[in-house]
Amino acid sequence: MSEEPSKALRIGLLGRGTVGGAFAELLEARADAVEAATGHRPEISGVLTRESGDFAEILAGSDLIVELIGGTEPARDYVLEALRAGRPVVTANKQLLAQYGEELFEAAREAGVQLRFEAAVAGVIPIVRVIQESFGVTEIAKVFGIVNGTTNFILTEMAASGASYEETLARAQELGYAEADPTEDVNGADAAAKMAILARLAFHTPVTLDCVSYEGIEQVKPEDLAYAKELGLSLKLLGVAERREGGISVRVFPCFLYGGHPLAPVAGPFNAVMVEADEITEVTMSGPGAGGVQTASAALGDVVSILSGDAPVHETREQLPIVTDVASSFYLHLEVADRPGVLARIAQVLGDNEVSVKSVVQRGSGDEAQLVMVLHECLESLFDAALEAIDALDVLRAPPRAIRVIEEEFV
Amino acid sequence: MSEEPSKALRIGLLGRGTVGGAFAELLEARADAVEAATGHRPEISGVLTRESGDFAEILAGSDLIVELIGGTEPARDYVLEALRAGRPVVTANKQLLAQYGEELFEAAREAGVQLRFEAAVAGVIPIVRVIQESFGVTEIAKVFGIVNGTTNFILTEMAASGASYEETLARAQELGYAEADPTEDVNGADAAAKMAILARLAFHTPVTLDCVSYEGIEQVKPEDLAYAKELGLSLKLLGVAERREGGISVRVFPCFLYGGHPLAPVAGPFNAVMVEADEITEVTMSGPGAGGVQTASAALGDVVSILSGDAPVHETREQLPIVTDVASSFYLHLEVADRPGVLARIAQVLGDNEVSVKSVVQRGSGDEAQLVMVLHECLESLFDAALEAIDALDVLRAPPRAIRVIEEEFV
Repeated sequence: MSEEPSKALRIGLLGRGTVGGAFAELLEARADAVEAATGHRPEISGVLTRESGDFAEILAGSDLIVELIGGTEPARDYVLEALRAGRPVVTANKQLLAQYGEELFEAAREAGVQLRFEAAVAGVIPIVRVIQESFGVTEIAKVFGIVNGTTNFILTEMAASGASYEETLARAQELGYAEADPTEDVNGADAAAKMAILARLAFHTPVTLDCVSYEGIEQVKPEDLAYAKELGLSLKLLGVAERREGGISVRVFPCFLYGGHPLAPVAGPFNAVMVEADEITEVTMSGPGAGGVQTASAALGDVVSILSGDAPVHETREQLPIVTDVASSFYLHLEVADRPGVLARIAQVLGDNEVSVKSVVQRGSGDEAQLVMVLHECLESLFDAALEAIDALDVLRAPPRAIRVIEEEFV
Repeated sequence: MSEEPSKALRIGLLGRGTVGGAFAELLEARADAVEAATGHRPEISGVLTRESGDFAEILAGSDLIVELIGGTEPARDYVLEALRAGRPVVTANKQLLAQYGEELFEAAREAGVQLRFEAAVAGVIPIVRVIQESFGVTEIAKVFGIVNGTTNFILTEMAASGASYEETLARAQELGYAEADPTEDVNGADAAAKMAILARLAFHTPVTLDCVSYEGIEQVKPEDLAYAKELGLSLKLLGVAERREGGISVRVFPCFLYGGHPLAPVAGPFNAVMVEADEITEVTMSGPGAGGVQTASAALGDVVSILSGDAPVHETREQLPIVTDVASSFYLHLEVADRPGVLARIAQVLGDNEVSVKSVVQRGSGDEAQLVMVLHECLESLFDAALEAIDALDVLRAPPRAIRVIEEEFV
């Protein structure tokens, strides 16, 4: 491209918050490099904020739209309108893609333009490109990892300090690792949206946010982390998308990982994603999960890809059902009455539901008595039934707490 | 693409060893997926082996060439001829690229076809694509990691078993992790070729194998690994390509890493590569470094990229000098005569050369007396001069052994 005269690339920027501002700055700093690599010199031709700018005008004056406003409305209308007007779009909007992805991909295909969204998942880790392009024809068995930096920061801090969830969340907010309203991060919805996007790309089948079952970290107690530390476990909020008999399963849940697991050392606000397939064994990618300049960098990479003529999103080529009842191992924490026969009754209920016990430890006594059990892998429906039956017994002093455990041994 | 009738893609395959055979099998298994993703149904139209096949005929009957024979000749002629005949080429040949990269890239540019080589570096880890595409306009400060699986396997085993280098190499050969002639792996030349390729892509400047200084692991002793274990260090063969004042430095050397370093847990035949830049902080990618099917999978990803219309290699846009004298920290192992004044004389020599000592431990006595020193960071030229002067003293019972140390603290 270097022989041709350089052309301007007019970018319409939607949103100028932390990420939008960082994008504008980075674009200016890297304009020479973009021009050298692509033959196009990028410039911001218009900016839409809550206070100023007119979308129709910005669209008319742009060659490409970068959407960094977040939320589904009006982002969805803007992105659809831009695609239909023949503009390639770069977005960091995970909820938009997780809820309306197929509609947007279809609009991009019809208009023959690209829709790119590396910044929507796992920050600066180029997992979207790797799954879509490097592993585009790989028979991926499983994509899983830590895709929310706020919760990983909170769990890392709780493990280090022994402080409560509430105290640690407040500290994360002070440090800027959690938002003023942290709901979507801590309840797992943010991670669920990201896993829906990754599952769509990995399995070439339609997956929306509705297909993902998720739990957050609000119920995690310091005792759970103390237990983890004692046994050399790490507690992580894990997103998992995997092929299971009969279809795929996409879930987000807090989970104990054994010390040797590749995700165990991922600490603080970092993210990490693993991809497994027979022909690749496993590939692990880690890096900062968020941050203005990191997210802006991922969006800029997408702009360069569009200018370099990369491929758009592959069409779905499968229709895989969502499997909701999968087998898991659980840790079960019960605050029990300290009297004879309690363990027997609980064991009976577990056995009646075909759930078998791997290990059990009684701690404390009197009003402090606790049973900490690790159960063998079983279908979650069986475990849920057992849990309900245990909760109905008159021997508990508090609701039971259950956390999944991954015991698989890695390299 | 799905509306158009599917077209055949005729692939001329050069080489049918471990990787070539795995490629042919994987291609057959994934032909449907490739067709669904790209609209082209791939087929092997000709195979060149040492015993059979005619290159000119295979070229004439193919749309794309996959070169998996290795070595620089005749691979170089074949690849150049294919590119000049307008055929895109996929290769796993690191030595070819590290020695003749610019010539090949130039031929590809002139013919307007793609040359892709994901399989040449770090096996199944898509580091070439990530550096070239995701981080194509990122101001990369440093690319480094473990890019040779054979040596990482040997070092991991030596650390676990306490066995000698020679014994462990023999075991690696039995298990298929080292070749019958392991020279290029164990002396660092293989890793050096890979680092030359990564440096070329990361810094947009011409880098060939000649620019890379390298050391291997043949001199590593069980005592070095025992020392590492005692202090919680890992010993790795590290490849480093980084910006340094005045240019770039590209090196391969054995190195002690502190326990918290992201590369410390990378064990056995795995590879891992880290990329650092202000705007991305750091991204780490790890996975199997070799293996027939894994390498074949990387080559197949390249075939799909070519069919999807991805971008070819960016032209160089800088001319950065190679800096050879960089600052490093060293561990120094000396077998010394056990008599008064030895430490003083050695310390004097170090001081005279402006090398300062961080810690020193004397072990054993009499004919077993050893000094283990860790030195503060200094220019390698100063350290080399000090080492030469120490070697010339009459107080050593064996040549001195030096290994670099990375003490930087990570997340």
